[in-house]
Amino acid sequence: MGMKNPMIFIIFFMLFSLSSFSPFSLAKPLENNNNKKPYYKPCKTLMLYFHDIIYNGQNAANATSAIVAAPQGANLTILAGQFHFGNVVVFDDPITLDNKLRSGPVGRAQGFYIYDTKNTYTAWLGFTFVLNNTEVGRGTIGFAGADPTMVKARDISVVGGTGDFFMHRGIATITTDSFEGAVYFRLRVDIKFYECW
Amino acid sequence: MGMKNPMIFIIFFMLFSLSSFSPFSLAKPLENNNNKKPYYKPCKTLMLYFHDIIYNGQNAANATSAIVAAPQGANLTILAGQFHFGNVVVFDDPITLDNKLRSGPVGRAQGFYIYDTKNTYTAWLGFTFVLNNTEVGRGTIGFAGADPTMVKARDISVVGGTGDFFMHRGIATITTDSFEGAVYFRLRVDIKFYECW
Amino acid sequence: MGMKNPMIFIIFFMLFSLSSFSPFSLAKPLENNNNKKPYYKPCKTLMLYFHDIIYNGQNAANATSAIVAAPQGANLTILAGQFHFGNVVVFDDPITLDNKLRSGPVGRAQGFYIYDTKNTYTAWLGFTFVLNNTEVGRGTIGFAGADPTMVKARDISVVGGTGDFFMHRGIATITTDSFEGAVYFRLRVDIKFYECW
Repeated sequence: MGMKNPMIFIIFFMLFSLSSFSPFSLAKPLENNNNKKPYYKPCKTLMLYFHDIIYNGQNAANATSAIVAAPQGANLTILAGQFHFGNVVVFDDPITLDNKLRSGPVGRAQGFYIYDTKNTYTAWLGFTFVLNNTEVGRGTIGFAGADPTMVKARDISVVGGTGDFFMHRGIATITTDSFEGAVYFRLRVDIKFYECW
Repeated sequence: MGMKNPMIFIIFFMLFSLSSFSPFSLAKPLENNNNKKPYYKPCKTLMLYFHDIIYNGQNAANATSAIVAAPQGANLTILAGQFHFGNVVVFDDPITLDNKLRSGPVGRAQGFYIYDTKNTYTAWLGFTFVLNNTEVGRGTIGFAGADPTMVKARDISVVGGTGDFFMHRGIATITTDSFEGAVYFRLRVDIKFYECW
Repeated sequence: MGMKNPMIFIIFFMLFSLSSFSPFSLAKPLENNNNKKPYYKPCKTLMLYFHDIIYNGQNAANATSAIVAAPQGANLTILAGQFHFGNVVVFDDPITLDNKLRSGPVGRAQGFYIYDTKNTYTAWLGFTFVLNNTEVGRGTIGFAGADPTMVKARDISVVGGTGDFFMHRGIATITTDSFEGAVYFRLRVDIKFYECW
């Protein structure tokens, strides 16, 4: 009977050492009754807005983005006719905590999108959130993926991060919160990290 | 002797709890006699084709891609002279299960490539497979990497996924299955996922 | 007492089998007294230089990159006025082990950058190191992220790899080692992998 305690000690030591096996926090799979796929609980979430004002030839002072490439026959001050197919837009947009453009920015969304479909509005996004705020954090979050802008909520990949978001991966759900013509777009980004370091 | 069973019970409980430690399936490293590097068995594979028809000024109805940027002196209807160096092409190509363009598409390959070398054909690819099919799955798969198109089989990174491909990572091997002039390209993509959630 | 040895045997067998649970080497979290965030020790490091010579209309023989898109009113042989905002540059740059352009290249840095800010020099980078060298390795390393070029050391994400860098992820710290006007840039890249397979 004297063996029991040291054995349990060894087992607890093993459990302890194994619990630090992975250097990062991973999402926890949870039961989901609706379908056979597991549902994962994020290890961190973040909800932010960014505001895109496209240069149209007259709004140089306010514009935060510009068309820099266009298909044959189109120009750089009006988004191209066929669902903007072929337009490349570069942006440096303010990020805010709420949906107000005038709120103090907590960072910048920097990158590009390419309209890539001829029969609906779909863009390919490559961009980075550069954050510098005590509440949200300091560092960068990288995004890449297809954005079918007519779909209410669309998921793109969070492919990496630096600083407070060191090595993070996850999914971002983008919704168009508001828009005015083809000049102003406000996007809401719900970031769910499933791999946190 | 009465202690043995509870102890084994504890050990099996530990093994059980630890087996669910990681929320995702990872590739299994296997023995490989040829060299010292481990060989990994994918946790999921997928083999698909996509079909790229570049706009040449006359095929607007059929074209699935367009040149949207070119180096100085080149235009947007003919790929540039020096191994197409500097051409940016945007595409929205049908994905098929077999190598026939006329087969019902299971999704779209959307994104861009940039010819980036002056002394051979090499492109930088950033694109997403948007899949919507009961057999293949529903969701997106993101790709990024260098494509030396004269090499028979070239590997690029699978950097993320959504939907049925939630948080997946892996390697895609691209082969040019067929081409006609500088207008039609058919690419075969062998996707090997090594991180499945 | 005769039970002790088989039990320990089982425990060591478990530890052994669990030690091969993860197919890859992960970074080790270390103590860090300065703040509450953990500090991770990379599982692999690499320090390389690459050399970018932008085409300016007169250096066609030496240039390794070219402006392929520009905002309205700018051209393709001079970087645009407003902190180059809107310029897209495609590159195929030699990679060297030391800071000498004339050293034998160990690979090529291929991809693009987009100047995306109107009030400072910031670029969005998407590129791949294509390496083919016995010392450094053979395979590709993929990078994506924001590059605020006026900051001394800036971190971007290593989003994937192939060949000797199969499935790797990490962080790359970029420093501008030297530059001449707006034509020649030499970048030092300190790659720290935190996920090695």
